[in-house]
Amino acid sequence: MKSHTAELIVLPSAPLHARIKNTLRARILDGSHPPLSQLPSESELGATFGASRITVRQALGDLQKEGLIYTLQGKGSFVSRPKAFQNVSSLMGFAESMSAMGYEVINQLLDLRFGPAAAQVAQRLGLAAGATVTEIRRVRLLNREPVSLEITYVPEALGRKLAQADLVTRDIFLIIENEGGLPLGHADLKIDAILADAELAAALGLVEGAPLMRIERLTHDAQGRPIDFEYLYFRADTFQYRLRVDRHRPQEH
Amino acid sequence: MKSHTAELIVLPSAPLHARIKNTLRARILDGSHPPLSQLPSESELGATFGASRITVRQALGDLQKEGLIYTLQGKGSFVSRPKAFQNVSSLMGFAESMSAMGYEVINQLLDLRFGPAAAQVAQRLGLAAGATVTEIRRVRLLNREPVSLEITYVPEALGRKLAQADLVTRDIFLIIENEGGLPLGHADLKIDAILADAELAAALGLVEGAPLMRIERLTHDAQGRPIDFEYLYFRADTFQYRLRVDRHRPQEH
Repeated sequence: MKSHTAELIVLPSAPLHARIKNTLRARILDGSHPPLSQLPSESELGATFGASRITVRQALGDLQKEGLIYTLQGKGSFVSRPKAFQNVSSLMGFAESMSAMGYEVINQLLDLRFGPAAAQVAQRLGLAAGATVTEIRRVRLLNREPVSLEITYVPEALGRKLAQADLVTRDIFLIIENEGGLPLGHADLKIDAILADAELAAALGLVEGAPLMRIERLTHDAQGRPIDFEYLYFRADTFQYRLRVDRHRPQEH
Repeated sequence: MKSHTAELIVLPSAPLHARIKNTLRARILDGSHPPLSQLPSESELGATFGASRITVRQALGDLQKEGLIYTLQGKGSFVSRPKAFQNVSSLMGFAESMSAMGYEVINQLLDLRFGPAAAQVAQRLGLAAGATVTEIRRVRLLNREPVSLEITYVPEALGRKLAQADLVTRDIFLIIENEGGLPLGHADLKIDAILADAELAAALGLVEGAPLMRIERLTHDAQGRPIDFEYLYFRADTFQYRLRVDRHRPQEH
């Protein structure tokens, strides 16, 4: 191995595809292969590493699953851009948070409608089953590229105000606080990951089966009443959450 | 439609597979189809909804991508268990956090080795390129089932202490604080999602391409010095993060 420092402790006994993957990952992370640059072709990589095309493809496939590279049909493999991120240590709207970092945020309003709440939605918002709620679907564009689909549920009265507001450029949070006169308090988030189905893939410009970060968020007003229940689906290939957490109560059992 | 309240506002014009999906989702979430129960067969669902087998399969495939159901080869579709979750509003070790909720946590120690740090790892830990670090790989088992793979990097001196400690039942955080004499301060987290490659899938008992929640975590001691850099890969089908965040600094641009 030429360089000891370019590798994460790679055992010589590791399978060849893993060594190719780790070497390429290190070169991507240290900038030897910069963002948006094209990787050497499969046959060039095969010659460099003394590997079959199948082995090279396995390494490239792993890097793609990890989101470090993407493939353009017939053109080869390219290094992904560094992910955009939102700091979620405090509760902020997406536009509020991202425009402060210099991004342009525009929303594509897919749908806004009134109808009876599903049991799950009514329960979260503290409404009677079947109470009327407003459902809003927006794709959020970061520098003109789709980054998330937001599905928002609010009680009807608040929804009537949102329906009159500018949902194309503004955060629902700020409309709730300013036009709604309801200062926000805190939100409870659930974070996991899913695979894009056909509808999510179409909304976000992805292939079916691409990884999404999913957020379920219940936002409360300053009095602690739930007022806004949302599902957020983020493209995991281009976006991440960042968060600082502090140590409390160390205790061993 | 029999019940207005069992549905998330579903347009009659929605495609049939979406209506089947939404109806089944509502029944799963309201408990009509409880966790671990078997869903009706594809042909039964087809007869109920007046849908072809292809349409039923598309609806079931979408629910599987979302993690609500899983399929056993030749046996049919079953409702997933509710996800276990860790509250990450404050910095706690996995065992510390989960055992407080009544779970058994055991770790499978896959590997512990000393070697030169990759550029990325050295930079995060504030070490010279190529400085010796300790790499520890553990699968964390929650009630005997694999839930995450943790890859931990610490400076060599700390690694020597960890190598002497009980890594099978204890959190590295608590070993650092107790045996290492280094109270923890805060951690910076990056959260996104990836697809499992063959190695992650094998470690976690998943199929390749399954969704994983990925955490990159840099933990600092109480003086703010970075001491522990980790990659955490969580099975998104059985686990989620939860978090409470508070509103600060509301401001419109």
